[in-house]
Amino acid sequence: MSARLRVGIAGLGRMGRRHAQNLAHRVPNAELVAACDPREEELAWASRELGVERRYTDYAAMLAQAEIDAVFIITPTTLHAQQIVQALRARKHVFSEKPLSLDIAECRRVEAEAALQPDLKVMIGFVRRFDASYRHAYQLIRDGAIGKPLMARSHTLDQNDPSGFFVRFSATSGGMFVDMSVHDIDAVRWLLGASDVARVYATGLVGVHEGLREFRDIDNGVATCEFTSGEIATIYASRTMAHGFECSTELIGTKGRVLVGGDARCDHVVISDVHGVRHPCTPTFYERFADAFLCEDIEFVQAVIEDRPAPLTLRDATEATRIALAMRESLLERRVVAL
Amino acid sequence: MSARLRVGIAGLGRMGRRHAQNLAHRVPNAELVAACDPREEELAWASRELGVERRYTDYAAMLAQAEIDAVFIITPTTLHAQQIVQALRARKHVFSEKPLSLDIAECRRVEAEAALQPDLKVMIGFVRRFDASYRHAYQLIRDGAIGKPLMARSHTLDQNDPSGFFVRFSATSGGMFVDMSVHDIDAVRWLLGASDVARVYATGLVGVHEGLREFRDIDNGVATCEFTSGEIATIYASRTMAHGFECSTELIGTKGRVLVGGDARCDHVVISDVHGVRHPCTPTFYERFADAFLCEDIEFVQAVIEDRPAPLTLRDATEATRIALAMRESLLERRVVAL
Amino acid sequence: MSARLRVGIAGLGRMGRRHAQNLAHRVPNAELVAACDPREEELAWASRELGVERRYTDYAAMLAQAEIDAVFIITPTTLHAQQIVQALRARKHVFSEKPLSLDIAECRRVEAEAALQPDLKVMIGFVRRFDASYRHAYQLIRDGAIGKPLMARSHTLDQNDPSGFFVRFSATSGGMFVDMSVHDIDAVRWLLGASDVARVYATGLVGVHEGLREFRDIDNGVATCEFTSGEIATIYASRTMAHGFECSTELIGTKGRVLVGGDARCDHVVISDVHGVRHPCTPTFYERFADAFLCEDIEFVQAVIEDRPAPLTLRDATEATRIALAMRESLLERRVVAL
Amino acid sequence: MSARLRVGIAGLGRMGRRHAQNLAHRVPNAELVAACDPREEELAWASRELGVERRYTDYAAMLAQAEIDAVFIITPTTLHAQQIVQALRARKHVFSEKPLSLDIAECRRVEAEAALQPDLKVMIGFVRRFDASYRHAYQLIRDGAIGKPLMARSHTLDQNDPSGFFVRFSATSGGMFVDMSVHDIDAVRWLLGASDVARVYATGLVGVHEGLREFRDIDNGVATCEFTSGEIATIYASRTMAHGFECSTELIGTKGRVLVGGDARCDHVVISDVHGVRHPCTPTFYERFADAFLCEDIEFVQAVIEDRPAPLTLRDATEATRIALAMRESLLERRVVAL
Repeated sequence: MSARLRVGIAGLGRMGRRHAQNLAHRVPNAELVAACDPREEELAWASRELGVERRYTDYAAMLAQAEIDAVFIITPTTLHAQQIVQALRARKHVFSEKPLSLDIAECRRVEAEAALQPDLKVMIGFVRRFDASYRHAYQLIRDGAIGKPLMARSHTLDQNDPSGFFVRFSATSGGMFVDMSVHDIDAVRWLLGASDVARVYATGLVGVHEGLREFRDIDNGVATCEFTSGEIATIYASRTMAHGFECSTELIGTKGRVLVGGDARCDHVVISDVHGVRHPCTPTFYERFADAFLCEDIEFVQAVIEDRPAPLTLRDATEATRIALAMRESLLERRVVAL
Repeated sequence: MSARLRVGIAGLGRMGRRHAQNLAHRVPNAELVAACDPREEELAWASRELGVERRYTDYAAMLAQAEIDAVFIITPTTLHAQQIVQALRARKHVFSEKPLSLDIAECRRVEAEAALQPDLKVMIGFVRRFDASYRHAYQLIRDGAIGKPLMARSHTLDQNDPSGFFVRFSATSGGMFVDMSVHDIDAVRWLLGASDVARVYATGLVGVHEGLREFRDIDNGVATCEFTSGEIATIYASRTMAHGFECSTELIGTKGRVLVGGDARCDHVVISDVHGVRHPCTPTFYERFADAFLCEDIEFVQAVIEDRPAPLTLRDATEATRIALAMRESLLERRVVAL
Repeated sequence: MSARLRVGIAGLGRMGRRHAQNLAHRVPNAELVAACDPREEELAWASRELGVERRYTDYAAMLAQAEIDAVFIITPTTLHAQQIVQALRARKHVFSEKPLSLDIAECRRVEAEAALQPDLKVMIGFVRRFDASYRHAYQLIRDGAIGKPLMARSHTLDQNDPSGFFVRFSATSGGMFVDMSVHDIDAVRWLLGASDVARVYATGLVGVHEGLREFRDIDNGVATCEFTSGEIATIYASRTMAHGFECSTELIGTKGRVLVGGDARCDHVVISDVHGVRHPCTPTFYERFADAFLCEDIEFVQAVIEDRPAPLTLRDATEATRIALAMRESLLERRVVAL
Repeated sequence: MSARLRVGIAGLGRMGRRHAQNLAHRVPNAELVAACDPREEELAWASRELGVERRYTDYAAMLAQAEIDAVFIITPTTLHAQQIVQALRARKHVFSEKPLSLDIAECRRVEAEAALQPDLKVMIGFVRRFDASYRHAYQLIRDGAIGKPLMARSHTLDQNDPSGFFVRFSATSGGMFVDMSVHDIDAVRWLLGASDVARVYATGLVGVHEGLREFRDIDNGVATCEFTSGEIATIYASRTMAHGFECSTELIGTKGRVLVGGDARCDHVVISDVHGVRHPCTPTFYERFADAFLCEDIEFVQAVIEDRPAPLTLRDATEATRIALAMRESLLERRVVAL
């Protein structure tokens, strides 16, 4: 294929704009040639700020463009699976934000479609796999620094949004485990090098956002995963933190422990004042993973150009979703769920 | 009662010696007047090092001494309940190391006996309640620093003992949750101010010490407790850490989080060398809680002298054991256990 | 001027290559159109890897090119001043790596030349001013977080290079204060918002690299700066650290303290093993400041394009050098040096 | 001598009370038999709280008591030297709080008097030598963990007292270096195993407490010490911190660095809330060193009972004072001071 990958992006919301900026300015060998969004003002932004020449309100129309080699899908979750399939059928490589789908049958359909087009790359954006610290931990584990991995503990904590903005998305997000913990699940699977999950147990509560009850969702929850190969992972998620966004993944092995994250520090600054000795925190996941979002864009583009396998497979995405859905089932039915 | 409490100690093993040294030298208003141990060399040590005048190989003989106001029971777990009952019947105040018993019916019998002698103090040594950091956290929570508590995470991690010394005690220890996690359970109940546990789910594995399988015990495990009042706690225990002993308890509330512990640092020393920037770790629980062991001795003695309630009740001890036993049941039966 | 800045780079050594890569791929609105280096293999690299079309072994020849708007000078220290002057006379904007010069008279000559061409931008790369953490600290101080600044403490510590590679550059580097501490001096001046230095006192030793004695240089040293406005700064430098590169700058004010850096951690990873609980360290200054090097390139290019003042002035560069030279004088003459 | 040391204490101010409590309750083999203080209410406290039977308003009268083996002098600095001499002449062992004296000639007179009574122990309370973390660092250094020590950095920072209580003691305290930095000087001498100081340079400022100017004192200052054996130490002191008391001592050697202290954390508690992730701080030196104050009492008493040398010599105390006085001279005369 050509030395430069011509990309069209679908979705110019908050995350879409960031991917678009990366593709326009910071991803070597990528060219952002088209953008699709139902909102004219977003398309105007892409034109004005990024110089994107081809702009579409209709996704199918963008796919019809022969000058596009790949699409980046940063649209609402409910559209991902169908848009991936459409893109594959239009012979485009596909990067899609996570999750693949909230429905396992649909995940399988996407896998099947991708299998029909083995020369096309498809990758779901599990961003932690592209973070320098997570990769450092991965390498340490592969190098035997902790011996044989036994246990994992991982958490994703969002700063509380007093507006409860996310409550109304609860109906379509799949709930907290599917929306947030799916990142921890994927990270743990990857770091453990684990095979399949045998069973999960999950529980949770509504501590702050009463509106979540309508959707049978929670704002704090914890789940245990037992892998068929014996390892055990505990995953905690919260949407009600006071101090900022925090994510942490800890792998414990027979000879040591490696921890990624742990304290939400946003940079090298430490303040000592009447409140104690403290470090300012990362407000959202984006600040924590800005470099990793760029890295995932770069690596996907490079994988396409060099015709190498994408760094993670559709099967990985399906598995993470399947486990997260089992957690939700466990939460709702108050029982251990076997997979 | 007299201004000085005359104490007899039963059990001069590793922990017994430490309580004996505290009582002899560092506990105001206490006098260590008697010691009981089946091993003559331990009694000789008490005489030589601490000047203890009355020495017994028979527990009943020590209890028969009128000059003793209180006994400290630091004997093997299986003896605690019976020895507490004997001491109460001999009209002695009683401090006993944890656990009260591995059998709930026996716990209840001790409670019943104590209820018959309401003027005698009985306290089980859950040492974290006497640790300055745990108390600081307790006060912060009571002062509203974290809002309403929602979630707890607690762990106790032992440095791996390659000799596997503890394996042969596994038959009588009650297993890892009962032996180790009981401290986390008590700490969480106390910090949460929680009522009763509704159900638990536990799982675990043998990562290093294969000999544990004979006793259906584990060396790494994790449990989830759901309280009837809604809070959720996750408790992790390990006997296989490379770096040292570590315990950590984290309470998450609607307005903040308070963490006790977390990184095993044994003092204020930080070393920077070819291994990175690092702090040396606490080798065992004793170094971590040496001050708290003294504090619990002091407070028990003072509670007796001033005829105030002991800082924790027998019911607290029974509850912690009951929950730990339910975790063991969950582990062995691979199901959620309701209490 | 045109919307894109056409850049020629002089010097393709280790740092030159990094600036070249930034300019070729990651700096918006910049185009790397030319490169100059006496070594053919470096020019071949620029052609092959970055697609640079115009390549020169002669600096004057590159300056003669009308298609170049700006030059980046990443050559040996001794060439900076003369090459800046040449570039200005050729009507190019100039970015030069620090230091401006080791000779104050020469610094002044460059300032004078620049004053004759006020429409051209000239900036010396004091990279810490472009680091997110340093900027965060700067903003906190400006926002009054520490009250009135009183004291500063700053250090730059290099991991020991057992090869002593740097010893033979000692003759031309100006010595450790001029080579390394100049970054701390500039950072402190910037963060303090300080006026002039009144006097300095410096001392040091050779702890490891005996070869430095030939050049009257040191591998560990400390200096005190007293500003005319009353603030005091202490600056420590070392080339003999075992754990990695570390830099730290601490500002202490009447109401608090802000610290940048402090522990050399290279990412979010923490390892717990037989060596204790530890974090891996940054090996060299480059990993610590990779983002800041990109940021300084971006901001210089943007300042030129938008015709805004460069983020730091030649006067700042002269001052930092003047103070560092006074430290060296103090070290060699063992006396307080007034400026 | 008898197996128990009978102690009289002179001075029942804040620190005197603490030593008295230690001696009464927590120091093995010590008996607090007498107390001397000009204030009747302090003596009444000693009687009531500690059961001290012999009480004196006159120091000489207490010394005349044959039943006293040793005196603890916790009186104002200006009395220390004379009271030590009196005690030696009365044939008592002597523990005195630091400093020995603010006058070197007087220090020498005390040393001479002590030399006449070589069987009597005299020790000045440099408390850091009895702190577990400082001792850990000492041992690491002796064990070669940092190679050959080269540089030291030490600081003592007091939380700001807005009442400026200490300002009026400035006339008699000897100033900040003598009052506070003397601890850092002694710690550095001890940890470095250093011989003599060759020269010092000190400077400082009044940042908050204007009243200090009357006494030519400062509230923030920094000093550099150069040892004849080549090592260099930098010492910083402040009385204006917002966050609490903090002391830190860092030794840098050819193979590593060991740091004691560094962040003022008072216990294992970490709070995460709207202010960030933070740890509460030690309010004063006393909380930081409470255990060490007890340890120094215990070790002095034990040294007397076992007729072993005291852990530090009068010469150590004289040297620390001599260096601190040279710092003051350097500060006032704005020049390097040779010793």
